[in-house]
Amino acid sequence: MPHSLNVTQKLIKDHLVHGEMVPGKEIGIKIDQALLQDATGTLVQLELEAMNLNKAKTEVAVQYVDHNLLQTDFKNADDHKFLYSAAQRFGLWYSRPGNGVSHPVHMERFGIPGKTMVGSDSHTCAAGSLGMLAIGTGGLDVAAAIAGQPYFVKMPQIMGVKLTGDLPDWVSAKDVILEMLRRYDVKGGVGKIIEYYGDGLKNLSAMDRHVIANMGAELGATTTVFPSDEETKLFLRSQRREEDWVELIADEDCEYDFHDEINLSELIPLIAKPTSPGNVVPVSEVAGRPISQTVIGSSANPGLRDFWIAGAIVKDKSVSSDVSFDINPTSRQVIQNMIENDAFANLIKAGARFHQSGCMGCIGMGQAPASNTISLRTMPRNFPSRSGTEDDQVYLCSPETATASALTGKITDPRDLEDLYDMSYPQFQQPEIEIIHTDMLVPPPEDGSQVPLEKGPNIKSLPYIQPLNDSYEVPVLLKMGDNISTDEILKAGAEVLPFRSNLPEISKYSYTVIDKTFYDRAMASKDNYGGHIVVAGGNYAQGSSREHAALAPKYLGQIAVIAQSYARIAWQNLVNFGILPLEFIAKEDYNKIEQGDMVRFKNLTEDVNNRNSIKVTVSNDQGKQIEFETTHSLSDRQINLLLKGGIINEFKERLKNV
Amino acid sequence: MPHSLNVTQKLIKDHLVHGEMVPGKEIGIKIDQALLQDATGTLVQLELEAMNLNKAKTEVAVQYVDHNLLQTDFKNADDHKFLYSAAQRFGLWYSRPGNGVSHPVHMERFGIPGKTMVGSDSHTCAAGSLGMLAIGTGGLDVAAAIAGQPYFVKMPQIMGVKLTGDLPDWVSAKDVILEMLRRYDVKGGVGKIIEYYGDGLKNLSAMDRHVIANMGAELGATTTVFPSDEETKLFLRSQRREEDWVELIADEDCEYDFHDEINLSELIPLIAKPTSPGNVVPVSEVAGRPISQTVIGSSANPGLRDFWIAGAIVKDKSVSSDVSFDINPTSRQVIQNMIENDAFANLIKAGARFHQSGCMGCIGMGQAPASNTISLRTMPRNFPSRSGTEDDQVYLCSPETATASALTGKITDPRDLEDLYDMSYPQFQQPEIEIIHTDMLVPPPEDGSQVPLEKGPNIKSLPYIQPLNDSYEVPVLLKMGDNISTDEILKAGAEVLPFRSNLPEISKYSYTVIDKTFYDRAMASKDNYGGHIVVAGGNYAQGSSREHAALAPKYLGQIAVIAQSYARIAWQNLVNFGILPLEFIAKEDYNKIEQGDMVRFKNLTEDVNNRNSIKVTVSNDQGKQIEFETTHSLSDRQINLLLKGGIINEFKERLKNV
Repeated sequence: MPHSLNVTQKLIKDHLVHGEMVPGKEIGIKIDQALLQDATGTLVQLELEAMNLNKAKTEVAVQYVDHNLLQTDFKNADDHKFLYSAAQRFGLWYSRPGNGVSHPVHMERFGIPGKTMVGSDSHTCAAGSLGMLAIGTGGLDVAAAIAGQPYFVKMPQIMGVKLTGDLPDWVSAKDVILEMLRRYDVKGGVGKIIEYYGDGLKNLSAMDRHVIANMGAELGATTTVFPSDEETKLFLRSQRREEDWVELIADEDCEYDFHDEINLSELIPLIAKPTSPGNVVPVSEVAGRPISQTVIGSSANPGLRDFWIAGAIVKDKSVSSDVSFDINPTSRQVIQNMIENDAFANLIKAGARFHQSGCMGCIGMGQAPASNTISLRTMPRNFPSRSGTEDDQVYLCSPETATASALTGKITDPRDLEDLYDMSYPQFQQPEIEIIHTDMLVPPPEDGSQVPLEKGPNIKSLPYIQPLNDSYEVPVLLKMGDNISTDEILKAGAEVLPFRSNLPEISKYSYTVIDKTFYDRAMASKDNYGGHIVVAGGNYAQGSSREHAALAPKYLGQIAVIAQSYARIAWQNLVNFGILPLEFIAKEDYNKIEQGDMVRFKNLTEDVNNRNSIKVTVSNDQGKQIEFETTHSLSDRQINLLLKGGIINEFKERLKNV
Repeated sequence: MPHSLNVTQKLIKDHLVHGEMVPGKEIGIKIDQALLQDATGTLVQLELEAMNLNKAKTEVAVQYVDHNLLQTDFKNADDHKFLYSAAQRFGLWYSRPGNGVSHPVHMERFGIPGKTMVGSDSHTCAAGSLGMLAIGTGGLDVAAAIAGQPYFVKMPQIMGVKLTGDLPDWVSAKDVILEMLRRYDVKGGVGKIIEYYGDGLKNLSAMDRHVIANMGAELGATTTVFPSDEETKLFLRSQRREEDWVELIADEDCEYDFHDEINLSELIPLIAKPTSPGNVVPVSEVAGRPISQTVIGSSANPGLRDFWIAGAIVKDKSVSSDVSFDINPTSRQVIQNMIENDAFANLIKAGARFHQSGCMGCIGMGQAPASNTISLRTMPRNFPSRSGTEDDQVYLCSPETATASALTGKITDPRDLEDLYDMSYPQFQQPEIEIIHTDMLVPPPEDGSQVPLEKGPNIKSLPYIQPLNDSYEVPVLLKMGDNISTDEILKAGAEVLPFRSNLPEISKYSYTVIDKTFYDRAMASKDNYGGHIVVAGGNYAQGSSREHAALAPKYLGQIAVIAQSYARIAWQNLVNFGILPLEFIAKEDYNKIEQGDMVRFKNLTEDVNNRNSIKVTVSNDQGKQIEFETTHSLSDRQINLLLKGGIINEFKERLKNV
C-alpha cells in the first residue's frame, strides 16, 4: 500500500476487514450504515426475518419509502405498513411515505464523512458527496450488512478527476456530471471509483457534489467519492450537525490509477438526448425543439438551490401554456425551506404542478409524457420507455435548462434568458441554518423484538430453504442456449413486479418467457423428486442483478444449474440463495444432456467442499446412461454458504449463536 | 304558476323555453354555462367534433382537467393535449392539469348567480351554492347544451329546507349535509331540487354552501339551490368579481312541495360509515377505532377554510406516526392562499403528504388505503372499493373530524381536542380579497376554427352514424332476461375505461359479461346484414348512465332493441345515439323470438314517425315464420332525433344550416 493515500484509499483502509487493496482482488469492508428504499426494501426485510435477525448491527440503517407512492390499489399502502413494522422490529429508522427521496434525506440527516454505506438502490453512491464510501448493491448484500457481515467487492481502480475554475452563470453541477458522461459514456466508469479533487471543489457546495456523485451511477462507476472539507462542514452546520463533521482529504502526493481534469469555467449547458444518459450534446445543438413537459426534482437535482433557481427564473412569469411544469419536491424539509425562501410561491404562481415528495416520474410512477412529445427532466436516467410512455423522448438537463425551456415551450439554452427576458443569473444564498424537519423520521425502539410484522395479503414470509443434500436424482427441466438473461428467467414489468414480496406468487413467472409449462413441471418435480436442475450454454443469467431470478427458481426446487459459463452478478446470486452453479469441464458435454433426462448426484456435499470434480450421471427412458464431470469456482466462503442453503440460512445459524 | 316564487322557480322561469313548471312534466331550459371534466370530457369533445360544431353557443364553457392526473402511461397526457386543442377549437376555456378541481374553481372564476349550467360530472350541482341552477348530466346532454340546445328534464319537486341558528364550535358545513344524509339517505332527494333558506344562512359562507350543495348529489337530488345574498356578494368580492353579483332570493310567501328544518345550533360532528354516504352516525359512536389514513380535500370540502382549519388544528404538532395524512389542495389558487395564511406550512410541518391539485383519491386515482384499515376522508363518496382497495373501510367526515383523528391515530370527535390538547376552536378569518390565480385558465381564441385537434393513438373520432333505414333483415344476436345492467352491456373498470375515447376499441367489450363472442358476431352481422338487434326482458339497461352502453352497440350495428321495458336514462341514451327502443305490445311475444332468429322490418321510418305499431317478422333456418307487433313511446322530438340517427346527426344537420 502506498504511503500517501487518496480519499478513497483512506476510506477503504479504515474499513478493510478482508483482503488487500489491490485492484481486482476481493476485499471485505466493514459497513457502518445501510439505506433501503421501499421497492427493494420489502424483500430485504423479509430476508432479515428469514435470518432471524434480532436487531440491526450497523450504526445507522434507514428504511425509506419514496418509490411506490401512487397507491393505485392496496399493495403500496400494505408495503408501507409492513416496512414500518419491520423497521421497528429490526431496529431501523423509518422515513415515512412522502417524507422524501432517500439519498438527499440521508445526506441531510444521517450522512457522516468517513463512514461506509451500502444501499439497495443504485444511486446510493450519492452519499459520496459527504466523503463517504457508499455503494449501491443487491438487497441480500444489504441484508447481510445490516446483520453485521462485511461487504465483499473486487477492489476497484480509482480515477482522479481534478476540478479547476468556477462554473459560469447559467451552468450548474448537473452540467459537470453531464460533461463526464459526454466524455466517458455509460460504461466509462465500470470497475472504477471516481474521486474528485482540486481547487474547483471550493466552488461546489455539498449538494452540488451530491448531483455529481449521484449520477456517477450512470457512468457505471462502483461509486464516487468527494473529500470532506469546509463545504462539507458548512453543509453539516446548515443541518445542525456540525459535530458529525470530520475532515477527510487526500494526501498531497497521493496517486490515482487514472487521471482527468475539468475546468469548470469552460463548461456550457449540456443535455442528454434520448435514450441514454451518455448521449450528451450542448443544449444549443437541440435548442428550439418543442416540448410538452418539464420535470424538476429527483435524487439527481434534489437541493434547495435546484428548486430555488427554478423559482427565481419563473418569478412573475407563467410557463408556456402547452407545457406541464411538474415539480417533485425532494422532501418535506425542502418544501418548508421553499416556502421560506418564496421558491414555492414563485413556482406555483408560474403554473407548477406540485407532487408529493418522492421519486415519482423518475422511476415511472406517474408523470408519463404525451405520445411523440419531448419531456425535459432533471432526473438521472432516460432509458427507453422508463417514463411510462413507449418510444418516449426524455432529455436530461439542469434545472436552469429545464426551467428556461418550460418558459419558452421549447428546448432553450438558459443563457438565452438574459436576452429573452432581460434577466441576469439569479444568485442563490444558501441559508446558514436550514429549517430542519425530522418529525417524519421514526426512530427504532430500544427493543423491537416483540413488534409483530404487519403483512398484508400480498406479503409472504420467505420459505425455509433446504441446505444442499448429499445425493439427488432429479430431472433436467429445461435446456437453454447461450446468453439467457435474467428477464428470461424471471421477467420484470407491471404484471410481475407487484409480487416482489410474494415469493410463492412471483415464482409462477419463472422461465415463462422460455417455457410457459415450467412452473407446473417444477412444482411436480419438487413433489416427486425433491427438485430439479436446468442446463444452459454460455453467459447464463446476464442482465439485471434481480435477485428473484435466483430466489424464485430456488423456491421451485432448483438444486443446480449446469452451464458453460455464468454472468458475474447472477452467479453470486445463485450461490447466495443456495443454488449450485456447476460448469461443464468439457464444453461439448453440453450436447450429451437433454431436457427430460434424469441426473444423479452422489457425494455432492463432500465433492463440493473438497473442490473435487462433480460427477453427473445422466439417464433417460430410452436407456441412455452416461456420465460426465463438472466443476465449480466457488471461494471457501461461498462453499460454506452453499452447503448451508445460502446466505439466509448461514445468518440464521450465525445469529442463533449470538 | 304561483305568483310568489322560490329561488328554484325563479331560476327555471327565467330560462324556460319548453313546457310548464309542473312537477313531472318535461321542461326545456336554456343553458348559460357548461362544465366538463377530463374523464367524461374527451367523449363530449368528440361529440362536438362529430356534430361539426364551429363554436360553443353557451356564455361560458370550461374544460377542466382534474380526474386523470396520475399519468401512468401515455393516455392521460394525450387526453390533456387533445382536450386543450379541442377547447381551443370549439371555444371553451381550458383549465390546465393540476389547476384544480372543477367545481370550486368554476365557482371562484365563472359562477354567476341566476345562471343555469349543465356539467358532465355528478357534482355539478355544487354551483347551486352561488344561486345557480346547475345540473350534472350525461356527456351528450352537455354537448347539446354547448351546441345551443336547451336541457330537457322532468320538472322536479322542490324541497325547502329552513336553516336556523349557528354552527357550534368544531361543527362545520360537512355536518349539515351529513345530517341531511342521516335523515334522507341516498335516495331521499331523487326527483327533487333541494332549496335552502332561512335565518341560519347568514352563518354559512358561500364556500360552506358549496359543501352542502355538492353532496346534494349523494341524496340523489336533481340539484341543490341556495339564494344569492350578502354572503354570495362577499364571496364574489373576495374573488374580485363583485360585478357578477345579483341578488336572488325567494319571495316571502313562496311555497315548497316538501318542507324540513335544521337548527344548526343543535348539530354535532357526524360521520358516514362504510360503505354509503347515507350511513351516518355521530362521530362519538365510532370514536376510538384505529385509522391508517386521513385525506383532506375534494369538491366536498374544497374551501380555503377547510385546509386552514386542518392546519390550525395540527399547528406545532405531528400526526400519529402510523397515519398517512394526505392533503389534496383544491387548486393552485387555494395553495397560494394557504401559503399566505400559513396553513400550508402548518400542515407540511405536521407531516402532511401534499398531492397535486385535483380529485386524486376521491375518484380512486391513487391514495388507496392499506388492507383492512380505516381511511377517513372529507370526500363525498365511500362506495365499496371506490378507494382502489377491495373491501375498504372509508368513512366520510368534516376536516375537523378528519384532522383530529389524524392527530390521535383513531377516530376522534373533534370536540375532544379541547381536553386532549387544551385547544379552543380556531376561528377562521376569510381574507377580504383572496390571492387570485388565473394564469392556468387558458381562454378560447376569438376564432378557433383552424385549430387542429391533437389526437394521440388512443383517441379516435366518432364514426359516422347511419340514420334509420326503412327496412332491415338482420339477426337477433342476443336474447337476454330481466334487469340487464349497463355494466353487463359495457363493463366498467380499469381494463375498459382507458378506451373511453376510442370507440372502435371500447366496443370490443360490448356484452362481454354476457357473451364473449358478441363482438365478433356483431362485426360479422354488420358486414353481412348491415346490423343486428337484441332482445331483452324488463328494465333493460338499468344502472349507471354510461353513454358507451348505447354508443358502443350502435357502433357495432345495433338497429333496435326489443324489450319488455327500459330503465329511464338508458332508454334516453339509446334514442340519443340512434338505436330504436321497441317494446313488446304483448309481453308473451318475448317467448316467440330467440337468439339466432332473423327479423325483418318494413316501412320502419314511416311507422316510427306515425306512431304506428311496428311489425316484426321472425324467421329461422328451421322454417319458423311468425309476426308480432311492437311499439315505442318516443316524444316527437325523440322521433325526429332517431330517424336522423341520433342527436349527433341532428346537430350536424342543424349546425350546417347556421
